Amino acid sequence: MNEKEKINSLPKGFLCSGVSAGIKPNGDLDMALIYSETLANAAGVFTTNQVCAAPVKLCRKHLTNSKAKAIIINSGIANACTGELGMESASLMAKETAKYLKCSHDDILVCSTGKIGPQLPMDNIFDGIHSLIDCASADQIKSTTQAIMTTDTKSKLISRTIEWNDEIISLTGIAKGAGMIEPNMATMLAFIITDAIVDPSVLNNILKLSVNESFNRITVDGDQSTNDSVLILANGASGIVVEKSETELYSRFINAVNEICFELAMMIVKDGEGSDRFVTVSVEGAKSFDDADQAARSVANSLLNKTAWAGTYPDWGRIMDAIGYSRAKVDEEKVNIFYGETQAVELGIQADTSFEDLVNAVSVENLLIRIDLGLGVDKATVYSCNCTEAYVQINV
Amino acid sequence: MNEKEKINSLPKGFLCSGVSAGIKPNGDLDMALIYSETLANAAGVFTTNQVCAAPVKLCRKHLTNSKAKAIIINSGIANACTGELGMESASLMAKETAKYLKCSHDDILVCSTGKIGPQLPMDNIFDGIHSLIDCASADQIKSTTQAIMTTDTKSKLISRTIEWNDEIISLTGIAKGAGMIEPNMATMLAFIITDAIVDPSVLNNILKLSVNESFNRITVDGDQSTNDSVLILANGASGIVVEKSETELYSRFINAVNEICFELAMMIVKDGEGSDRFVTVSVEGAKSFDDADQAARSVANSLLNKTAWAGTYPDWGRIMDAIGYSRAKVDEEKVNIFYGETQAVELGIQADTSFEDLVNAVSVENLLIRIDLGLGVDKATVYSCNCTEAYVQINV
Repeated sequence: MNEKEKINSLPKGFLCSGVSAGIKPNGDLDMALIYSETLANAAGVFTTNQVCAAPVKLCRKHLTNSKAKAIIINSGIANACTGELGMESASLMAKETAKYLKCSHDDILVCSTGKIGPQLPMDNIFDGIHSLIDCASADQIKSTTQAIMTTDTKSKLISRTIEWNDEIISLTGIAKGAGMIEPNMATMLAFIITDAIVDPSVLNNILKLSVNESFNRITVDGDQSTNDSVLILANGASGIVVEKSETELYSRFINAVNEICFELAMMIVKDGEGSDRFVTVSVEGAKSFDDADQAARSVANSLLNKTAWAGTYPDWGRIMDAIGYSRAKVDEEKVNIFYGETQAVELGIQADTSFEDLVNAVSVENLLIRIDLGLGVDKATVYSCNCTEAYVQINV
Repeated sequence: MNEKEKINSLPKGFLCSGVSAGIKPNGDLDMALIYSETLANAAGVFTTNQVCAAPVKLCRKHLTNSKAKAIIINSGIANACTGELGMESASLMAKETAKYLKCSHDDILVCSTGKIGPQLPMDNIFDGIHSLIDCASADQIKSTTQAIMTTDTKSKLISRTIEWNDEIISLTGIAKGAGMIEPNMATMLAFIITDAIVDPSVLNNILKLSVNESFNRITVDGDQSTNDSVLILANGASGIVVEKSETELYSRFINAVNEICFELAMMIVKDGEGSDRFVTVSVEGAKSFDDADQAARSVANSLLNKTAWAGTYPDWGRIMDAIGYSRAKVDEEKVNIFYGETQAVELGIQADTSFEDLVNAVSVENLLIRIDLGLGVDKATVYSCNCTEAYVQINV
């Protein structure tokens, strides 16, 4: 088994590129293309926001046949709240790409990320598409990854390989995130490509489960975006069939997709706007999964907690407060709270731990907050980050 | 009619005081007493947080007879998450005050605000109570108001008088707020005293309705506190009976309580931690009041919107985003959004308004955001403030 990272090479039969099309005023890379030489099976998971961007609407339509040949992406402008003209622009992006890739426009998926409101500059977009096609290759993943970034400070890329009967399945995932990352995925895009042969309905199930355990468990600021999309394409170029009856391979493939989604989600939350501390909020002893989930999200989304985590003061009172106003059932006299292994709260009141020990326990780069509600056996974890002055500077 | 402000004089038969008891490390005023020479009718509204402070539990108990003679308050320590010892401390505060005021300890209401977790330093508290009783008078409202402050930058005080048949009813309200102000009242204390004669059940109803239209409609950071309390005492010293059958007086009294609650709530939100802009979010055209309320709160509590309001960029996309992920029914193609009178969004897309006009419309100290969902006739308004770098500095 050799499922370690393998950066910079794409799964077989995929090409990609990233260029600057002049959408971002500073000239940064702002358009990307990922495409498969053959038509791939495809699946997608999208934002649950009632206000959703034109490309999201288009992707949902184009995925009805569970097939895709390419994903065309722009950053800088979200093409959200752009009405009929925005829908037409998204559709033109697909058509122009399809024309050069010689496929049906229904087989092109479109993603946008950036500012809500403005219309896309279609001349730039068309020029960008032409450049993307001209320079697409199997070794352009870095520029592709950079071209989908907005306020990200780091590009997000991860690969996995699965050796099977002397052959190899490859999977590569890239993502962009930063601000507005929230329970239900907010402004983030993630694309996973693989050369395995996977039935579309299987692909769809695997993606949904993986997203639930990864992108849907992270939160930066509690806001949800209009453009969130996670797409997976499986073009079958490896010649290896992944199906349920082949139990071991099937489970290794699922693990690989899970790992890619989880690692990308962690990269996103660690790169949260203006954040410098990674925080895991784990609730156990809840009466139900929903209770555990609500309590964890209430703490992770609380602005008072997020700002506390910008310092090193063990302010567990704000955790008690946030679980108390969550929709989870809480009995304060049964609550235990730990920073890592250090107990801060014992049965609802300050534990017998020295202040110095508590300060040490919270003065870590990766902070684990474990909350035991003492009411049941259910648990949930969310991954978050702190809120610093830099967050405000970025979003003013 | 002369219901204008009348600061610095208390309703008849009330005395108050504020002292420094050494609970706040910097020596600021940190204990306050408000008391009536005679037993007053009383009512209270408290936090809905499941984790609630010892004094809140005690107040609920002491209000079962709807009577009170005094309110004893400390700031600096919340006496929340303090277990049995905390309950005993709250009870001792009541008992010590009752001893000197020669009443039953059941007739003393207790409030605390400040840090969650630490136990109260009872020696300081007892000394504070003695000093408070020694210096209580009818002209100490300013020190009283200062003594209940935590991160407030301004004291919050308002009075109303009602002339009736050549006699006068007086009402005075004071409050503290700042951080953690949220839909359901978060860390705020407000006390209203009046010399009217009002039946306890009437007093209770009036207070509940007033709180719903004032303190429950403001939000600073979306967090809810363990200690929120709004108390009203009516000692009857004016000799004027307020009852439903006396329609005009009854309605003027309700208006006065409403005005006091509303003005105090506005003072609290305007003094939100690190905030320098007052924002009114008004949603109309909703399918139900709940929808209007949810949409308004979603916008007002959105960190991305709060930070946008720290600048002067008309980022209406974040408003569209926030209503879209609220629990309110939204059809983006029917949404209109206005900054004051200036239209930013028309039927879900950018309105035909120049960028300069939009910038001017958002560059005001008191920003009104009006959102018409275009789906019905229900409306709701919440009052909020922006989030600046100073908020983070205060709460680290």
